[in-house]
Amino acid sequence: MDNFTFYSPTKFVFGKGTESQAGQLVKAFGGTKVLIHYGGGSAVRSGLIDRVKDSLSKEDIPFMELSGVKPNPRSGLVYEGIDLCKANGIDFVLAVGGGSAIDSSKAIAAGVLYDGDFWDFYSGKASVQNALPVGTVLTIAAAGSEGSGDSVITKEEGMYKRGTGAEALRPKFSILNPGLTTTLPAYQTACGITDIMAHLYERYLTNTKDVEVTDRLLEALLITMKNEGPKVIKDPNDYQARANIMWAGTMAHTNSCGVGRSQDWNSHAIEHELSALYDCAHGAGLAVTMPAVFKYELGHDRARFEQAARRIWGYQTAEEGIEAFRKYLTSIGMPSTLGELGGKEEDIPVLVKNLCYGDGRNGTISGFVTLNEEDCTAIYKMML
Amino acid sequence: MDNFTFYSPTKFVFGKGTESQAGQLVKAFGGTKVLIHYGGGSAVRSGLIDRVKDSLSKEDIPFMELSGVKPNPRSGLVYEGIDLCKANGIDFVLAVGGGSAIDSSKAIAAGVLYDGDFWDFYSGKASVQNALPVGTVLTIAAAGSEGSGDSVITKEEGMYKRGTGAEALRPKFSILNPGLTTTLPAYQTACGITDIMAHLYERYLTNTKDVEVTDRLLEALLITMKNEGPKVIKDPNDYQARANIMWAGTMAHTNSCGVGRSQDWNSHAIEHELSALYDCAHGAGLAVTMPAVFKYELGHDRARFEQAARRIWGYQTAEEGIEAFRKYLTSIGMPSTLGELGGKEEDIPVLVKNLCYGDGRNGTISGFVTLNEEDCTAIYKMML
Repeated sequence: MDNFTFYSPTKFVFGKGTESQAGQLVKAFGGTKVLIHYGGGSAVRSGLIDRVKDSLSKEDIPFMELSGVKPNPRSGLVYEGIDLCKANGIDFVLAVGGGSAIDSSKAIAAGVLYDGDFWDFYSGKASVQNALPVGTVLTIAAAGSEGSGDSVITKEEGMYKRGTGAEALRPKFSILNPGLTTTLPAYQTACGITDIMAHLYERYLTNTKDVEVTDRLLEALLITMKNEGPKVIKDPNDYQARANIMWAGTMAHTNSCGVGRSQDWNSHAIEHELSALYDCAHGAGLAVTMPAVFKYELGHDRARFEQAARRIWGYQTAEEGIEAFRKYLTSIGMPSTLGELGGKEEDIPVLVKNLCYGDGRNGTISGFVTLNEEDCTAIYKMML
Repeated sequence: MDNFTFYSPTKFVFGKGTESQAGQLVKAFGGTKVLIHYGGGSAVRSGLIDRVKDSLSKEDIPFMELSGVKPNPRSGLVYEGIDLCKANGIDFVLAVGGGSAIDSSKAIAAGVLYDGDFWDFYSGKASVQNALPVGTVLTIAAAGSEGSGDSVITKEEGMYKRGTGAEALRPKFSILNPGLTTTLPAYQTACGITDIMAHLYERYLTNTKDVEVTDRLLEALLITMKNEGPKVIKDPNDYQARANIMWAGTMAHTNSCGVGRSQDWNSHAIEHELSALYDCAHGAGLAVTMPAVFKYELGHDRARFEQAARRIWGYQTAEEGIEAFRKYLTSIGMPSTLGELGGKEEDIPVLVKNLCYGDGRNGTISGFVTLNEEDCTAIYKMML
């Protein structure tokens, strides 16, 4: 195990009706004027936004709203949010939604306290030192952003999707009511399940030896997803399965189960180009990407893939384990080919170029295995 | 799964040589004058106390020392620490040691900011609202106090052992260097392993339904202990096994794996009377207690014990699983009878009386199963 620091000072308030605590929590963490940042549509229709506003009003906390966050959240809305906060003396950003609303909120929170262009944090030109406090009311179990210091934003010019991370971006509190996720369409639920499992597999694929405790924790969460995922696809109102998935999703990404070990993240890098170019759901992109990446990386450490096959899927060989995972993803309604995402073979050179030379890279991406243009081309071709 | 709040704002700094960061961490968390609180003996001889002092001196942070913490830490030293802090304007308590040093430090930290008798927190007369910040440098993987808001103190008059818990008692930081644990005698190492496994089993025995995610996480940590425990008994210098055990021990008790479910803690309550009366090691007392309690509680939910047997120990029946655990404890050098702890059959009425009528109880203890005097008598008799 490698040396590490683990710090997750987010207060998680979990369960039925917990969104009614939003106002008290904002107050406890020092917020006096709030930006409520969300997508729109369902959060408004379900009455959730009204319940959150009521909760703030009960504590006499004034608020403004900025809606319109889309999946793969855009830099344009972030600039708008930063201006709004600066012009109105807002000192707390409350995200209501999934990873997109939360990531966009984090970008706004960091941008407000920064003199330059917030994109500097995402292009690698600067690192986040300070940010306004952020709280979240989660409406989909997926990104894990409610318990992490990470944020991913897409820049409209060129549709570059880039991430940043900082201690200052960890939410002060996250309200996790599994009941809020029962109205999600099955496809979005399945995308969330896939994203959570990706966060676990990215950590599982390590070159660090002697990591029994984190291996076992990651397997525990993957087994949970394997068992609970199909339940919510079958019955969207299964609160208990939703609850198990939601806590697994948060635990998957606080990194308590990924400390002290190298991690992969090649699948995320390869997928980011798909959702940037095709604007597909991140989870759907990952469902197509992961089996291809795993098959390509298999030779690097067959024993690790065999361990996953045996302990998670109940198979003996590495190939059987990967195939079981692929079939699982298909069974919950996820795509398995580039074509299903709207991709074509002739796009592959563009995908590879953006991947291998974007984000300050010099022709390779490096995780569990270092992959060059040729490798990445082969992987995208495996998705056809 | 039940509603819950989970908040673990402790910064964990894990790995080789990390004790050299003590000074920086105290400074980062606002400490300007420190009480270093520890046992003595080995922490001094190994040079650890000197390294911690050097680290504080490098940051120009003045400190005082209070040594002499014993296993099952006593109220007398707590009173001494409170007086010392008050008289000298100390604003940070740095525990160096295991659960005893940490629990004693927490008691001092709470007592300094309280006008009444600190024992009020342990007798149930008052709850901790504020405390001086506490940091820890852990020297044994066992109690999990480095990642919890709990503290257990023994009152000399009557040798009552009582606990308290509060958010304010969670350490600001905990330095976890597994290398510091390699010099522990095998018996103490085994006591620590047993305590960690007890923290996991106490959470595993639940009456809450639909707790797949926490069941799997608890099993993951129990399997880790099953596999790594014998390695460190065989080779005390196995850093990697020490590291896996140390992180498992911390994760076992932050409660991330125990949220949203009722828990047992009958074994701890029953054991506390043993270590209070015989001053035996808490882990050794638990090794004797748990198999008896589990056999007695088995009929309450056979399926749960069967699940543990199957998933953790590789057996089918509940009885086989409990017996596998008992044999495991014996294999790492733990006792299995009351006699080995210095106990005698004629003490049982006193143990039962202290247990069932101490701590504000009215004749029963209540966890996974509610146990009355007759039940507790039967359980102590099973340990003969």
